[in-house]
Amino acid sequence: MKSTIITIGDEILIGQILDTNSRYLSQQLNAAGIVVFERTSIGDSAESITETLDRALSQSDIVILTGGLGPTKDDITKHTLARYFHSDMRYDEREAEHICAMLARRGIAFNELNRSQAMVPERCTVLHNAHGTAPGMWFEQEGKVVVSLPGVPFEMVHLMEDEVMPRLKKRFELRQIVHRTLITSGIAESILAERIAEWEDALPEEMHLAYLPAPNIVRLRLSAYEVDGASESRRIEHEFAKLYNIIPDHIVGYEDATVEQLLHALLIERGERLSVAESCTGGRIASLFTAQAGASAYFMCGAVTYSNDSKCRVLGVSEDDIRAFGAVSEQVACQMAEGVRRISGADYGISTTGIAGPSGGSPEKPVGTVWIGISTPQRTFAVRRDCGTDRSQIVSRASAYAISMLYNEIR
Amino acid sequence: MKSTIITIGDEILIGQILDTNSRYLSQQLNAAGIVVFERTSIGDSAESITETLDRALSQSDIVILTGGLGPTKDDITKHTLARYFHSDMRYDEREAEHICAMLARRGIAFNELNRSQAMVPERCTVLHNAHGTAPGMWFEQEGKVVVSLPGVPFEMVHLMEDEVMPRLKKRFELRQIVHRTLITSGIAESILAERIAEWEDALPEEMHLAYLPAPNIVRLRLSAYEVDGASESRRIEHEFAKLYNIIPDHIVGYEDATVEQLLHALLIERGERLSVAESCTGGRIASLFTAQAGASAYFMCGAVTYSNDSKCRVLGVSEDDIRAFGAVSEQVACQMAEGVRRISGADYGISTTGIAGPSGGSPEKPVGTVWIGISTPQRTFAVRRDCGTDRSQIVSRASAYAISMLYNEIR
Repeated sequence: MKSTIITIGDEILIGQILDTNSRYLSQQLNAAGIVVFERTSIGDSAESITETLDRALSQSDIVILTGGLGPTKDDITKHTLARYFHSDMRYDEREAEHICAMLARRGIAFNELNRSQAMVPERCTVLHNAHGTAPGMWFEQEGKVVVSLPGVPFEMVHLMEDEVMPRLKKRFELRQIVHRTLITSGIAESILAERIAEWEDALPEEMHLAYLPAPNIVRLRLSAYEVDGASESRRIEHEFAKLYNIIPDHIVGYEDATVEQLLHALLIERGERLSVAESCTGGRIASLFTAQAGASAYFMCGAVTYSNDSKCRVLGVSEDDIRAFGAVSEQVACQMAEGVRRISGADYGISTTGIAGPSGGSPEKPVGTVWIGISTPQRTFAVRRDCGTDRSQIVSRASAYAISMLYNEIR
Repeated sequence: MKSTIITIGDEILIGQILDTNSRYLSQQLNAAGIVVFERTSIGDSAESITETLDRALSQSDIVILTGGLGPTKDDITKHTLARYFHSDMRYDEREAEHICAMLARRGIAFNELNRSQAMVPERCTVLHNAHGTAPGMWFEQEGKVVVSLPGVPFEMVHLMEDEVMPRLKKRFELRQIVHRTLITSGIAESILAERIAEWEDALPEEMHLAYLPAPNIVRLRLSAYEVDGASESRRIEHEFAKLYNIIPDHIVGYEDATVEQLLHALLIERGERLSVAESCTGGRIASLFTAQAGASAYFMCGAVTYSNDSKCRVLGVSEDDIRAFGAVSEQVACQMAEGVRRISGADYGISTTGIAGPSGGSPEKPVGTVWIGISTPQRTFAVRRDCGTDRSQIVSRASAYAISMLYNEIR
């Protein structure tokens, strides 16, 4: 079963917003065994919508559109679809009542524009949007399905889960798509490819191998489309077992786990606790851990000590050492990691202190210089890393390095 | 001048990665006056690449592709393009040396796969990738340009800035695209549309108005394509001035500023300082501020006090109050905001304490309940907000509410 995803909105094409809907939809469709053949983003233009829909229906059985369902004049998806499917519009009492109630909760009166939101094409099945004022629509034509959803991510997600996926599973007989990922570390992509070439060449025909490199790790993904999920998973596990014998020391995890997820699981398993003292990463490391459900089992406290003063006051870093060695130094990184471990009573402390730029660099310590400190019950140490030149990249890389460093230290 | 963006990779279509390249490319092309007509994501399939390229060249003057240039077998973009442009391959000595040097720095030997990365189509201009091992390619045919770039975001960005944009500006005579955005707050989208309907109807024909709603704000964007940038900007400013007279109290900013950017500017202007104490937002608020260059002028310290113990130890929250009212309470939110302000010596303190889920909720305090505390030299108070049901959404919403609350309090 093939599908096409179409996201609509000038704000996407000019780069004003990041299109996260396409990714979510891809994940949902894949998980249900529906192959995403293509994703396209187009502007709020009736001609573009019509042409793209024509093409999508020629290549796919299922088409999901998002966006262009708001109450204002730039939102034209609904009327374009009504014309596409030669359908008149009707006033939907139930949707009108729901819109009226939603607005009332926010103290807003129902007006002409909201009334237009309750107008729906006669030929569609209305998908009730419990979390917003724009209903979704489900059209069928010649055995194919076209679904139109609002572009607001939160509303779209609920409509997919509550209305669209259950209907698709009922409407079509779906096979399964299996993706399994193995995570390697400490081996370059080209060397890895050489080492596993023989294994790769002997893979069963239905399995597709992909290499996904990231800082310090390369993921290997095996995918098989429209198969029997359970037996295919077993076949892939069998292949992974063979691979294990070729590169046993380089396999650090499975599936899409990030290093913070691996560390999260490791700390919970060991019943140990972590605190973090951040300067240049500004709270990123804390938020990576605390984004994970269950982090409160081990995450004690994070200190974002941006100013020198707060490094001394909160973490007990020596003022003399800051004067002598600078805030971006091995000494300060060590004292920060040790300090946060001490004040919080955690088993492990991580620290970062660096120059995120764009200003503040010097010849000895250019922008991108970061000292990362690790403190454990056994020892405290710090390592200097060059994390690039761009502020957001420096924050990301320094965070990734710091988390991997502690992971490798514990493991 | 029209363009199409094509991103290639099965990992995009299955939703394994978020396609951020398309957004970046959209922004760059737009800023140079090149209209992005369509964006498409396809899999690593020669047939898909060829068909999509055919279509893109029929509708656009410039086509930018990313992805599929790695050294492994799943990367087929280069050979597909060579066939598309009927070109033989040649070995590029300069690229080979560069790849060899890059690998040497990481202690990796140059192998057969790396050798294949130095092979390039004869018909293309090689775009040197200073930050990676896969060179970019520039093809021309019948007055149109096709550019192929690696999918690694960092490498792609440098190639665009250093190689592609300068060449496009030299190659084509480009007009300008103007987008100007005005930010409104405290007025619902449908009410806003009603209030400004007359103004909207009287807009000059070349200006397109878009409504972009987000929590607590609605952005209004006026766009004009392929115009004289300076005179069009003045015309838009003239329209914004008229709009100001219609909704003077609801205009809070211009362009794509987020509330944290508005607050960043406000604090720097006033020479005042901020500290943050976070529980359920886990460092997100600190990282939103510190992501901005220059934040060290006002950002003193962030405390991610996830455990009750650290709330008491680090911030001086009363243990008795945690027992009596719970960690998620008005009292604790106030003491956290006040505490972080006191220990850091800042002018303002923000705090969050809530239930991010999925577990930990109760009938009185369901998942999503967040108390947000604000402490200023004048007063300390806290407000309870319902931030939804999904963990990541709760963190985002609570952070957005907290930052807006302080912004409105100061303003």
